[in-house]
Amino acid sequence: MTHSSPNPIESDTYSRAGQVMIDPSASLFQLLGAKGWLSGDDTKPYRRDWLDRYGIAPLGVARPANTAEVAGILRLCSGAGLAVVPQGGNTSLCGGAVSDQPRAVILSLARMAAIGQPDRDSGTILVEAGVVLAALHEALEPHGLIFPMHLGAEGSACIGGLIGTNAGGSQAFRYGMMQDLVQGLEVVTADGTVWNGLRAVQKDNAGYQLRKLFCGSEGSLGVITRAVLRLYPAPKQRGSALVAVPDFAAAVALGTYLREEAGEFLSGLEFFSELGLALTLKHLPDLSFPLAARAPLYLLIELGSGSRQVPLDDILAGALEQGMERGLIIDGALASSDAQRAHFWRLREEQPEGQRLEGAQLKHDLSVPPGKIAHFIEAAARICDEILPGVRVNPFGHLADGNIHYNLSPPVGAMDFSDKAPVLAQALASLAGEMGGSFAAEHGLGRAKIALAERNRSAAERTLMARLKAAFDPKGTMNPGVLIHAP
Amino acid sequence: MTHSSPNPIESDTYSRAGQVMIDPSASLFQLLGAKGWLSGDDTKPYRRDWLDRYGIAPLGVARPANTAEVAGILRLCSGAGLAVVPQGGNTSLCGGAVSDQPRAVILSLARMAAIGQPDRDSGTILVEAGVVLAALHEALEPHGLIFPMHLGAEGSACIGGLIGTNAGGSQAFRYGMMQDLVQGLEVVTADGTVWNGLRAVQKDNAGYQLRKLFCGSEGSLGVITRAVLRLYPAPKQRGSALVAVPDFAAAVALGTYLREEAGEFLSGLEFFSELGLALTLKHLPDLSFPLAARAPLYLLIELGSGSRQVPLDDILAGALEQGMERGLIIDGALASSDAQRAHFWRLREEQPEGQRLEGAQLKHDLSVPPGKIAHFIEAAARICDEILPGVRVNPFGHLADGNIHYNLSPPVGAMDFSDKAPVLAQALASLAGEMGGSFAAEHGLGRAKIALAERNRSAAERTLMARLKAAFDPKGTMNPGVLIHAP
Repeated sequence: MTHSSPNPIESDTYSRAGQVMIDPSASLFQLLGAKGWLSGDDTKPYRRDWLDRYGIAPLGVARPANTAEVAGILRLCSGAGLAVVPQGGNTSLCGGAVSDQPRAVILSLARMAAIGQPDRDSGTILVEAGVVLAALHEALEPHGLIFPMHLGAEGSACIGGLIGTNAGGSQAFRYGMMQDLVQGLEVVTADGTVWNGLRAVQKDNAGYQLRKLFCGSEGSLGVITRAVLRLYPAPKQRGSALVAVPDFAAAVALGTYLREEAGEFLSGLEFFSELGLALTLKHLPDLSFPLAARAPLYLLIELGSGSRQVPLDDILAGALEQGMERGLIIDGALASSDAQRAHFWRLREEQPEGQRLEGAQLKHDLSVPPGKIAHFIEAAARICDEILPGVRVNPFGHLADGNIHYNLSPPVGAMDFSDKAPVLAQALASLAGEMGGSFAAEHGLGRAKIALAERNRSAAERTLMARLKAAFDPKGTMNPGVLIHAP
Repeated sequence: MTHSSPNPIESDTYSRAGQVMIDPSASLFQLLGAKGWLSGDDTKPYRRDWLDRYGIAPLGVARPANTAEVAGILRLCSGAGLAVVPQGGNTSLCGGAVSDQPRAVILSLARMAAIGQPDRDSGTILVEAGVVLAALHEALEPHGLIFPMHLGAEGSACIGGLIGTNAGGSQAFRYGMMQDLVQGLEVVTADGTVWNGLRAVQKDNAGYQLRKLFCGSEGSLGVITRAVLRLYPAPKQRGSALVAVPDFAAAVALGTYLREEAGEFLSGLEFFSELGLALTLKHLPDLSFPLAARAPLYLLIELGSGSRQVPLDDILAGALEQGMERGLIIDGALASSDAQRAHFWRLREEQPEGQRLEGAQLKHDLSVPPGKIAHFIEAAARICDEILPGVRVNPFGHLADGNIHYNLSPPVGAMDFSDKAPVLAQALASLAGEMGGSFAAEHGLGRAKIALAERNRSAAERTLMARLKAAFDPKGTMNPGVLIHAP
């Protein structure tokens, strides 16, 4: 490992007037020690994003052990004009956690992974930003409590990154997104000031809701170091069903029925398409499909209740019966064991993997009002086929909040999208926007979607965001090039 | 009515250089017409706050009919350097919606009260800012939908004000505060720019969460004109109980038990004290008390479910039985009719009125983590009695989110608080803060609590808020003196 020897980049730290300035790499090494400062080849595992589209070698990777060290890093970087790129599990799908410039410090929160004792009466827990989501789930299990955030990357994604990107996932419609689950925050701002907002109450209206503002700010306003999260009692019983439905109109009608008749219990309403199922079964041969019928669309329905007195199985079975009678369901199966439930979930969660293994793909993370999903799906398919005839549409996602991962594979036989990717992305963004939805539902903007934001959002909106950025990060050192263009 | 004749204040509109400037009052009259611009005595009903502590005569009251008129008002006021004070139902308990300077326009949203058609599949509705909360409840009833925000002032409070103050109320722990219920917003900022963020999706991570930032900004960043709100299916059955409990420790334990065993259904967990009950029964003789036993503390428990298959009465009765067996409940009654349920609620909701009729009072709107309520109540009583021996403590509020309306009456025989009000407020704020809570839970800061904010929150926090204010309202014309001091 190389820690202290200056590298060519650091010659920048000599000012133009020739005055010798402090070598930031040496200072960071001094501040953080060998465990806390990586440079040279040791930064390799941190450089590139999850989809391998962004990232160059940074000056180094800082791995602070506590908030004071984070503050020290930010003070130093602010003084030296170095970019700071906060990185959690590095699972961003938009390139939000890697650097595009050499004069940058990647700030990994991996060593700040302490989990406090849950407070059962208050329904809260204090955690450090580097805690992996799955580790938090595991830590809570013996306490009969849950942190109700679930998403594909939960084995790697960290609390800080989840807050920074305002993650949503499969239970957001019931329990909320990260912004709804954060009660208190500690954040270090660009100049190294520590804001301790680690209060542990839902109701705190003492001025602007800073704790919410940092949710979704993608590291561009400050570095999240600790959080007080809201917990819920673990469900004591669950019921899951996999059903085949004729189309999206039926799926939405079934969703409305479920929300009205079993709204308190509904904790999952996932969908995937026949194309997605076919790709997944083709590329992941250990998967099997439990229904006799194939259909254009499948739903994974999950109910959960904290009360043992609720006849959950009856409610779910009754809903399926109703759905069949009303022609909303073609076929269905109830999970009879935890293993079967897990298998249902794998069918949904392996959708991205099945499509990845098929070859080139385009990912779009859209949302539309749930009542407009059927209309969107129909119009979007037509538009995409006009732009690139034969393009294969594979939508999957979260029905109850209208979040569609509208992914595309090239036409059969084609290797790529014939340079139509930007046109497709803009057409879909535009359609979602017209329907009152969003081209960036739960993945954020990162580096990948700033151009889409500039094109699809009003000047008024982007100007307010630019003012916010300038107010919190006047020197522009916080994750530059992410969420908003540098001024 | 006097609309167009200049009054003395308007001589200010002649600049010092002697150049004739546009008379803003005349311009506003021209923009808004007789229905939309009130001056002189016609402004009287708008001048003073709910508690009659703040407010002087403004230049006039603007009553715009639509967003374009709001934009025109703000452009004009920004140009003329006039303060703009947004006012909804004028139910602020902190003086947030009246003016403290004569060169101000009170902007009443009362004429913007349109309610859109609810979208049942999406669970959303578009409303204008001047819609009264109770009117929204009523409009939704035939649709089998609810907007789950309930508070004492719902007969007057408007959606815009509820958003501006990030209202909480009695169901916040289940459904969220306003910031959790707002999906889209339209806001006019200080210079008259209209930001249309009226998207109708929960998941919209295309940059900073402006829609959430405006929640709780108290009119100091812009004027909320329209909102897309989240709706829920109406419960099909409800169960309510009034119980007498020995102390706060028992109340909290019962609350935890209810959340764990009936968490999906719990939609109300209100508390009031024996002192509060006594004052209410004394001053409101039409009220009766349904329990045989009197106790230090009472809880109003309410469950609601969207499913008819849930044995809600059994669940509630079983919980009370458990509570009695475990010594958490002394006595209890289940509401056997809607009339009885309404009476239970009146016992809780008349607490402020009972205390008001007793004479002088001090209101404090505090929150602490629910697990620390018992400790807080004990320590606070001791501290208050040290500051003003014999002071009568009357806490009531929302147990599940730790929101305590910690109200005080003078010692028996005394007419006032012997100038101890500021010392009491600071001592309580300090205690709540030490416990991870807040001195401003759901009422906001307004004019009344800026000093407490300056004393009880860090310089880091107040500085970030000041930067936010300056970024959105560089001239300082938006509700100056509310939430934050003018620079």
